[in-house]
Amino acid sequence: MKIEAVDLFYLSMPEITDEADGSQDALLVRVSGGGLIGWGECEAAPLPSIAAFVCPKSHGVCRPVGESVLGQTLETPADIARISALVGYNSMDLLQAPHTLSGIEMALWDLLGKKRGEPVWRLLGYRQALRKTPYASLLFGETPDITLERARAARRDGFSAAKFGWGPVGRGEVAADADHFAAAREGLDWDAHLMVDVGQIFGEDIDAAAARLQPLDDAGALWFEEPFDAGAFEAYAALAARGAQVRVAGGEAAHNVHMAQHLIDYGGIGFVQIDCGRIGGIGPAKKVADMAVARGVTYVNHTFTSHLALSASMQPFAGLSESHICEYPAAPKQLAEQITANHIRLDGDGLIAAPDAPGLGMEIDPARLVPYLVETEIRVKGRVLYATPTL
Amino acid sequence: MKIEAVDLFYLSMPEITDEADGSQDALLVRVSGGGLIGWGECEAAPLPSIAAFVCPKSHGVCRPVGESVLGQTLETPADIARISALVGYNSMDLLQAPHTLSGIEMALWDLLGKKRGEPVWRLLGYRQALRKTPYASLLFGETPDITLERARAARRDGFSAAKFGWGPVGRGEVAADADHFAAAREGLDWDAHLMVDVGQIFGEDIDAAAARLQPLDDAGALWFEEPFDAGAFEAYAALAARGAQVRVAGGEAAHNVHMAQHLIDYGGIGFVQIDCGRIGGIGPAKKVADMAVARGVTYVNHTFTSHLALSASMQPFAGLSESHICEYPAAPKQLAEQITANHIRLDGDGLIAAPDAPGLGMEIDPARLVPYLVETEIRVKGRVLYATPTL
Repeated sequence: MKIEAVDLFYLSMPEITDEADGSQDALLVRVSGGGLIGWGECEAAPLPSIAAFVCPKSHGVCRPVGESVLGQTLETPADIARISALVGYNSMDLLQAPHTLSGIEMALWDLLGKKRGEPVWRLLGYRQALRKTPYASLLFGETPDITLERARAARRDGFSAAKFGWGPVGRGEVAADADHFAAAREGLDWDAHLMVDVGQIFGEDIDAAAARLQPLDDAGALWFEEPFDAGAFEAYAALAARGAQVRVAGGEAAHNVHMAQHLIDYGGIGFVQIDCGRIGGIGPAKKVADMAVARGVTYVNHTFTSHLALSASMQPFAGLSESHICEYPAAPKQLAEQITANHIRLDGDGLIAAPDAPGLGMEIDPARLVPYLVETEIRVKGRVLYATPTL
Repeated sequence: MKIEAVDLFYLSMPEITDEADGSQDALLVRVSGGGLIGWGECEAAPLPSIAAFVCPKSHGVCRPVGESVLGQTLETPADIARISALVGYNSMDLLQAPHTLSGIEMALWDLLGKKRGEPVWRLLGYRQALRKTPYASLLFGETPDITLERARAARRDGFSAAKFGWGPVGRGEVAADADHFAAAREGLDWDAHLMVDVGQIFGEDIDAAAARLQPLDDAGALWFEEPFDAGAFEAYAALAARGAQVRVAGGEAAHNVHMAQHLIDYGGIGFVQIDCGRIGGIGPAKKVADMAVARGVTYVNHTFTSHLALSASMQPFAGLSESHICEYPAAPKQLAEQITANHIRLDGDGLIAAPDAPGLGMEIDPARLVPYLVETEIRVKGRVLYATPTL
C-alpha cells in the first residue's frame, strides 16, 4: 500500500499546569493507506512538531518530515526502517524531526499490523507478549504526607511498584528528600518496587546527587532516574561508580539510538528508559532493547501519556523476560485517558501485557477527542501549510 | 537592561534548491533592550524554530523558548549563561529549543557588546582577534572538471584554503571520488589547504569511508569531514584509528556542549567544527573551544550562511592561535550576502579577523531584507501567536 495521508491533531487540556506532567497535551497522528488507518502519538510540543512536518524546505538536507513519508510504499517492517532512514537523512538539519517522526512511525507499525492482522510485537519477532509489572508513575507531593498518601493509593489501586518523581525533591536539603523517599516506601510497604525520578535536577553536580544515594538505599529504591543532564555521561558514570545498591536510570531524552547506547556504554546506567514518542518510534526502541540485552542492562519504557503511547511503548520489549517492569501512567489527565476507547488494565495479578490484537490494538474514538482539539493554522506567504484536519 | 522584545524574521530566497546549501534561507533574530538592538541568526528551519519560540506550554519542562527570555535582565555575560540555562531546563522536552535559542543568544551578546562598547571576543576574555586563514566553503561539481574550475576560482579570489563538500562524492565508486579530490588539489595547487566534507554519506559504514582515506592522503587533504552519522562515535573512532594522514572532522550537528565533547573524547576527531547557530550560541561554542585546546584538538567554526553568522562564529576562537583556519562562505546565495550591510573581507594577505567593533560588529539594513521576508502567521485557538513583525 501507499501512504496516502498523514494527519496531525493537536489535543490539549483546557488548562496546562506547571507540573512535569506530559499527559496535558498530545499530538495524535493518523496515517491512512490502502483503506486502513494507523494511529500514533508524538510525545511533546505539538506546534513545533507540526511545523517540522509542513515547513518549507530550507535546503537539500533540511526538508520537512512530510516530504519523506507521504506517497511511500508500506508493505514490510523494512519499509518502515527505510522511511525512517529517509527522514533521518533528508531532515538531518531539522532538529525537531525525530519527535515528529516518532508518532508517524508508530502509526506506520499500527497500519502494517492491521494489514497483516498481527500485533506489532509479532512483527518485531516476539512470539508472545509477556506480562509485565506496571509501575504507577506519580509525582512527589508537596509534603511527605501527600507522598505517603499517593503511595498508599497506588497500592489500593493494585500496583506493586511505583515511581515518584519531580516535585520538591532535589531542590532543598538532603534530609527533606530522605523524608519523601521514606514516606513513599512506607506507603508502598516493603514488598513493592520503589523508583525515584529527579528530572535532571542536579545538572552535572555529582556530589549533590551522591548525597541522595544513602537515603535511596535506606528506602530500598530500585533506581535513581535522570539525576543529570541527559548528555552528562561522565556524571552518570561517576555516580554509578559510587557503589550504591540503587542503580542509575536514564534515557528518556534519547532522540536516536546512539544517544541511548552511549548512556549505557559511557554513562554506566543500569536501566535504560526509552520513550517511543521521542526516539523515532518503535523500530529504534527495539534496537535499544536488543542492545540492552546484549549489555546486561534492563530496558524499560518511558510513558507518561495515553494508552496508545503505552501500547506502542510496550511493543519493543514485549517478549523480553529480562525486562519485567513497565511504566504505567497511573494518574494521567483526562485527555490522555480519552485518547483511546479501550485501555490496558491491570489483571487479577496486577500485571499488564501489550494487546494481542492487530497493530497496536488500541481504538481511537474521534468523538471523545473533539472537545480537546486545538484549532491551529499555519500560513506561509499566504498559503495555508497546516490547518487542523477533521477528526 | 531588560530584554524587552525578541522578533524573529523568516527570510528566504524565492526558490530553494536541493543543494546542501544552508544559505538559502535564514531566521534573523532582533533583540531589543535599553534603547539598543542586538542581532543574531538561527542556522536552520525557520518555521519550527519560530514555533518553538511561541508554542503553548506543554507542561512544566516543555515551555516555549520565549517564556525564559522575555523580560530577563541582561547586564553581564553571566546573565546570558543564566538565560541559556533557564531555556535548557524549562524547554528540556522541546527538541527544537537549542536551534531557536542559538540566534537569540548571539543577539544577546551583540546587545551586551553594544552596551559595553566592546567586541564580543573581548567579553569572552580574548585580548585580540587574531587573523585567520579563511577557507572557501564550496560544493563539489557534478564532474571533476567543474570541481577543478571551482578550485581555481577560489585561488583567483585570494583563498589559500578551500573545502569541497557534498555533490556526487560518496555516492559512487572510490575512483570517481578520487578524481574529484585530485581535481580539487590540482585547481588549488599544493601550497593551499584542501579539506573534504561528505555530509554523513556513509552512515556507519566504516569500510566505505576508509576506502577514501588513501585518495584523500594522495590529494594531501587536511581533514575528512562528517563521514558518518553525527552520533556514530564508534565509527569515527574506528576511522581515526586507521592511521591515515588526513584527520577526521565533525561536530556541526552538536546542539549542546556534551555532543561536541563526546565526539572529541569518544570519536577521536582531530578537528571539532561548531556552528554557533545550532549549539545554543556563542557561550557554549566558547566552552567547546576551551575543551578543544585542553585536548589538543583544533577548533573550527561551521558557517555556511551570512556574515552576521560568520562574525558570531569567529568570536569563540578569535584569540586562539592554535586555531588558524576559519570557514568562510565563499559562494553564498544573494540573501546571505544581503543580510549584513558590511562584510568580513579578505585583507591583502588573504586573511580575515573578527570585527574590532562593539558587539558582533555587523550592520543590518532592514530595507535590503524586505524582498526576502517570508510572511508567516501561526494561529492557535483563534489567537495569533506569531505574525511576521515589521523589520
